[in-house]
Amino acid sequence: MHAKSKGTNAERELIHLFWSHEWAAIRTAGSGSNHYPSPDIIAGNAIRKVALECKVTKEIKQYLTKKEVDELQEYARRFGAESWIAVKFDRVNWFFVPASELECAGESFVLRLEDAKLKGLQFDELIGNNA
Amino acid sequence: MHAKSKGTNAERELIHLFWSHEWAAIRTAGSGSNHYPSPDIIAGNAIRKVALECKVTKEIKQYLTKKEVDELQEYARRFGAESWIAVKFDRVNWFFVPASELECAGESFVLRLEDAKLKGLQFDELIGNNA
Repeated sequence: MHAKSKGTNAERELIHLFWSHEWAAIRTAGSGSNHYPSPDIIAGNAIRKVALECKVTKEIKQYLTKKEVDELQEYARRFGAESWIAVKFDRVNWFFVPASELECAGESFVLRLEDAKLKGLQFDELIGNNA
Repeated sequence: MHAKSKGTNAERELIHLFWSHEWAAIRTAGSGSNHYPSPDIIAGNAIRKVALECKVTKEIKQYLTKKEVDELQEYARRFGAESWIAVKFDRVNWFFVPASELECAGESFVLRLEDAKLKGLQFDELIGNNA
């Protein structure tokens, strides 16, 4: 499967998770002809709104460009949402890491599996169902 | 120009309007393989969130299916957003009409140009810049 469809499938899996937990969630359209900041997914309920950049990787670390992270945070600031990185490492479940917790790696950011396990939330924790 | 690309262009025009007025806005991805409610555009700022179904027409009335309106309202209720119809009649500017104000026409809803002028807001009014 191509990297792109794999990413799309992963996003659809997340969309389904949100809806099955009483949240609303949508995938955004590809940036196309206009170039405004656009996260991969926007989810929310009456109380909280979250903007997500989604990544799927077979490696034990995931890079994000400075542009990706900056635009996620710019979008979230304007829209009034929390900014999160959703990352799925191979054969491990989703982790959700606040964009502000990413480690700077020169011109980009890196998220290591060990850090995702340490700092990241699981889905139930992200949506606050872990009480 | 095809109806679909005309609709997409109109949506992009709205996205641009929101961003140029300090709001954030995104187009949602086509419904594709999952079938959760999904408005055409989600826009917002720190205070307000609006879900929009967008229509462009050369006629003096615009029909919407019951499904379109129901899904818009279901999405908006879950996400915690206002639900609006954005309609652009030929050679007239955009009007924004609350989904709850649509006139029932059997199995569908209809929005007439005369009613849009009467009940609808202009863009500046929608975003509250009309003070």
